[in-house]
Amino acid sequence: MPDPSLLEAFPSPVDTPFVVEHVAEEFTSLCPKTGHPDFGEVVVVFEPAPGSSGGLCVELKSLKLYLQSFRNEGIFYEAVTNRIRDDLAALMTPNWLRVTTNWRGRGGIRSIIHAEYGTVPPSIP
Amino acid sequence: MPDPSLLEAFPSPVDTPFVVEHVAEEFTSLCPKTGHPDFGEVVVVFEPAPGSSGGLCVELKSLKLYLQSFRNEGIFYEAVTNRIRDDLAALMTPNWLRVTTNWRGRGGIRSIIHAEYGTVPPSIP
Amino acid sequence: MPDPSLLEAFPSPVDTPFVVEHVAEEFTSLCPKTGHPDFGEVVVVFEPAPGSSGGLCVELKSLKLYLQSFRNEGIFYEAVTNRIRDDLAALMTPNWLRVTTNWRGRGGIRSIIHAEYGTVPPSIP
Amino acid sequence: MPDPSLLEAFPSPVDTPFVVEHVAEEFTSLCPKTGHPDFGEVVVVFEPAPGSSGGLCVELKSLKLYLQSFRNEGIFYEAVTNRIRDDLAALMTPNWLRVTTNWRGRGGIRSIIHAEYGTVPPSIP
Amino acid sequence: MPDPSLLEAFPSPVDTPFVVEHVAEEFTSLCPKTGHPDFGEVVVVFEPAPGSSGGLCVELKSLKLYLQSFRNEGIFYEAVTNRIRDDLAALMTPNWLRVTTNWRGRGGIRSIIHAEYGTVPPSIP
Amino acid sequence: MPDPSLLEAFPSPVDTPFVVEHVAEEFTSLCPKTGHPDFGEVVVVFEPAPGSSGGLCVELKSLKLYLQSFRNEGIFYEAVTNRIRDDLAALMTPNWLRVTTNWRGRGGIRSIIHAEYGTVPPSIP
Amino acid sequence: MPDPSLLEAFPSPVDTPFVVEHVAEEFTSLCPKTGHPDFGEVVVVFEPAPGSSGGLCVELKSLKLYLQSFRNEGIFYEAVTNRIRDDLAALMTPNWLRVTTNWRGRGGIRSIIHAEYGTVPPSIP
Amino acid sequence: MPDPSLLEAFPSPVDTPFVVEHVAEEFTSLCPKTGHPDFGEVVVVFEPAPGSSGGLCVELKSLKLYLQSFRNEGIFYEAVTNRIRDDLAALMTPNWLRVTTNWRGRGGIRSIIHAEYGTVPPSIP
Amino acid sequence: MPDPSLLEAFPSPVDTPFVVEHVAEEFTSLCPKTGHPDFGEVVVVFEPAPGSSGGLCVELKSLKLYLQSFRNEGIFYEAVTNRIRDDLAALMTPNWLRVTTNWRGRGGIRSIIHAEYGTVPPSIP
Amino acid sequence: MPDPSLLEAFPSPVDTPFVVEHVAEEFTSLCPKTGHPDFGEVVVVFEPAPGSSGGLCVELKSLKLYLQSFRNEGIFYEAVTNRIRDDLAALMTPNWLRVTTNWRGRGGIRSIIHAEYGTVPPSIP
Repeated sequence: MPDPSLLEAFPSPVDTPFVVEHVAEEFTSLCPKTGHPDFGEVVVVFEPAPGSSGGLCVELKSLKLYLQSFRNEGIFYEAVTNRIRDDLAALMTPNWLRVTTNWRGRGGIRSIIHAEYGTVPPSIP
Repeated sequence: MPDPSLLEAFPSPVDTPFVVEHVAEEFTSLCPKTGHPDFGEVVVVFEPAPGSSGGLCVELKSLKLYLQSFRNEGIFYEAVTNRIRDDLAALMTPNWLRVTTNWRGRGGIRSIIHAEYGTVPPSIP
Repeated sequence: MPDPSLLEAFPSPVDTPFVVEHVAEEFTSLCPKTGHPDFGEVVVVFEPAPGSSGGLCVELKSLKLYLQSFRNEGIFYEAVTNRIRDDLAALMTPNWLRVTTNWRGRGGIRSIIHAEYGTVPPSIP
Repeated sequence: MPDPSLLEAFPSPVDTPFVVEHVAEEFTSLCPKTGHPDFGEVVVVFEPAPGSSGGLCVELKSLKLYLQSFRNEGIFYEAVTNRIRDDLAALMTPNWLRVTTNWRGRGGIRSIIHAEYGTVPPSIP
Repeated sequence: MPDPSLLEAFPSPVDTPFVVEHVAEEFTSLCPKTGHPDFGEVVVVFEPAPGSSGGLCVELKSLKLYLQSFRNEGIFYEAVTNRIRDDLAALMTPNWLRVTTNWRGRGGIRSIIHAEYGTVPPSIP
Repeated sequence: MPDPSLLEAFPSPVDTPFVVEHVAEEFTSLCPKTGHPDFGEVVVVFEPAPGSSGGLCVELKSLKLYLQSFRNEGIFYEAVTNRIRDDLAALMTPNWLRVTTNWRGRGGIRSIIHAEYGTVPPSIP
Repeated sequence: MPDPSLLEAFPSPVDTPFVVEHVAEEFTSLCPKTGHPDFGEVVVVFEPAPGSSGGLCVELKSLKLYLQSFRNEGIFYEAVTNRIRDDLAALMTPNWLRVTTNWRGRGGIRSIIHAEYGTVPPSIP
Repeated sequence: MPDPSLLEAFPSPVDTPFVVEHVAEEFTSLCPKTGHPDFGEVVVVFEPAPGSSGGLCVELKSLKLYLQSFRNEGIFYEAVTNRIRDDLAALMTPNWLRVTTNWRGRGGIRSIIHAEYGTVPPSIP
Repeated sequence: MPDPSLLEAFPSPVDTPFVVEHVAEEFTSLCPKTGHPDFGEVVVVFEPAPGSSGGLCVELKSLKLYLQSFRNEGIFYEAVTNRIRDDLAALMTPNWLRVTTNWRGRGGIRSIIHAEYGTVPPSIP
Repeated sequence: MPDPSLLEAFPSPVDTPFVVEHVAEEFTSLCPKTGHPDFGEVVVVFEPAPGSSGGLCVELKSLKLYLQSFRNEGIFYEAVTNRIRDDLAALMTPNWLRVTTNWRGRGGIRSIIHAEYGTVPPSIP
């Protein structure tokens, strides 16, 4: 079951503009209706708050274990995306955060869901 | 025949910025002039209204059945695109909606049609 | 319903080694179990018998109409493939014929089916 | 010889934001200096004026025949592009129109030419 | 746990040369050492025995459920591959069968495993 | 109109195994039924006879002019391919020659035609 | 040695927004330190001044000869890029000009240099 | 150990808008936790200050040697990126600088880190 | 320094035809002449001897550590390839083994080296 | 001018099957008719004679300098290919050698030339 207590953070090392993107290419959960597995990719992008203001970055291995905790959870695409956004926003209180889930599709339709927190930084691509 | 009564919606789960994209890679209808089949891809992207204001999201399986209802309909590219835009806008009254149809082409020309409703969200790619 | 009477042939123009490949990228039929549409690609490759021995080639537009006649037929992947192989072999009695159907997949599994008639020519790639 | 009288239009079906893109992947004309053939791709994108204001869309088959009328014309890249822009603007008086020609190149240099009419719509990609 | 009793077969419809390929792009099991998930693709290719000799083909949905039964099994790459080969050979007794597993990799090394049964057909690509 | 008198050859410079491949990516002719243009690619591969036995190679610019001479000819795919094979075989009497035409397609079907002369060399890819 | 006197221009044919892009995929010069050849691609994009104000476009063949004149020149990446920018700006006095050189790399590092003149047009991609 | 004293600079040759991008496709350092090697790509993009104001550009070979000095350093992704940004900003005091590191990933997650200095130039892509 | 004592093997689990391919995408060693790093990919493919005859397979993590032991070794491409072939052949005495190293290149030339042991299996691709 | 005296060789390090492939992606010479530059790729593949029988391998840097010596030579595609084959065969007397030149094309036709020496090894891909 999704477990945000698995998430750990470390202090952002700088105060200057700085953006981190983690691409988890191997995500799986279960469809809550049919019980069949869903497969997709989770992209997390964020600008931490400045280090001197207590800014935090999610630790990579803890992110991996957190994402693995969805493996046998029956949960909709929208709920996965908003849940990860909420858990990471609560962990880091970043300047900006975007979570994108990109699903391989079923029945000929594939879906992409974006959820966001804060304001997009002006200059990072 | 295209049947919007097949479409179902569920309440948008959140009030924060949130965008959903569904890519139906296997769409077919008929050319109203020649009766020959047209093949294409339909992309639906939308930002639902906030959940607390009664925002809605189209249900995925109902979208699939709705798109299948065009299978034996003689209908032009432009009409397909505007019809889907209108039916989904009527269903969800979203903040923003864009429908793109991308056709495989005939006679050496392929076409892409975009129809839109509402205002593009500022920060979602 | 699949209609081999739509197929037409013309005399093979030469006696020298000669291979023809037609790739129909837009094929659709129905799943006989669920009634949902299947989408795929049909590849027909053949070496006609020598023209002076009565060799024949399938006519392109008639092939297109024949393939369109599967549109609303409920039929399994294997049956589509063997049916097309049999109908084209009956039409042309070629030296060699191979029919490949390449399906877009459902439920995370996509399938490719090959059916053959006669002997592969030694030198054509 | 390029013949704009081949172009036909139909009334734009809606008043809402709506963009049409036609990609003609097989365009050929002649180099006016050498007489050798030029090969390229022509992309036409436009937002029609609102239907209720007399907005028009170019008809697809007429566009194909019009583009074929350049086949044996000796004409420079720039002239092809501006000619198509002018002929389509005269036909449709659209809100916006962009014609791009993308040439396969000669002597190690390939060229892309863009010509425009009107104002780019704010929200369509 | 891997469950071959989930597999079902149907009679091969023909006696002529005929090859079936199923590509399951979304396979997951667990590493028996670390418990971390492994992700990969499973490709099953076979030539059934002739239908009139009791030849059989694996049924597609049963194959999907069988492959899903590895989801929470701790099992090595080599064992997955040989296990699927053995279970499918026992089900179908085909003329030929090849199982390929293509893993996404860990620690910078990705692996591909091939296991085979019977003799490769002479003419199918 | 196709004009083999445009073709020129030069003596093969060596007696050792040697294969030449020319890929003309921009070929066009007309459909003899509809008059609409066909677009495709022509690939010519050959092993010349040994230079000391009078072996010849087609000269590149003459090949280009020869292929351009099909521009306004109404001619079927099969006839184009066999015509080029015959004209080049007559010009060079090579050890081996293969002509492949790869057409962009009409009505959802694209075609590839191979015609050959002589015996494939054992060792060249 | 780079020779701007090779460059020729012709009057811009229109006054409306119009952008030209030339991609020279086969550029070579010499490294001034080692004498070894550098290989790259040169992209020239510009909006000419309006034709009625004396706007000019660089002539394609003269551009090719000009770029060839760098072949045996020892010159740094930055100097090539600024030199071409300056020579073309002097020739055309365009509304806008951008020169990009994209080098294949040496020692594991590849470089891209952009130099610009004037103001980017608002609406051309 | 990372050694900024390896970096050398040369005077920016011009005062006009000018952007340089260096892509080092073969970067490696060590994970400070496990000691295992990390592999990635480092992209450095900058606009030098005007040459007449003492603007500087990093010299290419010195950049290569500087990047090689991380080879046996145990250092986190974020620290590599900010370290390179700081060392290059100290060397050049450019108008703008962006350092992107793109890592091949471990355990199914790959990361991209962007760090920036100064203001993005308005017109360079 | 390359250390074959890091390699470990486990008994081949079967006697039937079985091929294993490991692709290590992140290999690095040093050029013995210049001391600069070389980067490449190492592909190991083998058919183990039958399990009942004492056949062995290299263990994946031990292969990773073994390949990492080349990191600071000055060694030529050819020597790396033959060294890995010899060490793995000594470890496993397989039916067949092929080692391919694919190097990213220096000075515009990239190299691929293949070394082999035993006889290629007849039926595995 | 092409200078085979630039080529150097070193003793083949082994007697076991062993194949070396060098891909020079940046080759240029001049067209002997027009003086315009030709650009292409040169691929050299060979199996050296056994080291204990005096087998030799071409040294990489000497190969690079040798290929650079064609830079300002007016020479046909076929002559380049056979010349390199002859010079390398004379240098190494290998078991097998194949030289492929892959040219970027002029006037819409690109060419690939293969020249060979000796017998293709049975088992190397």
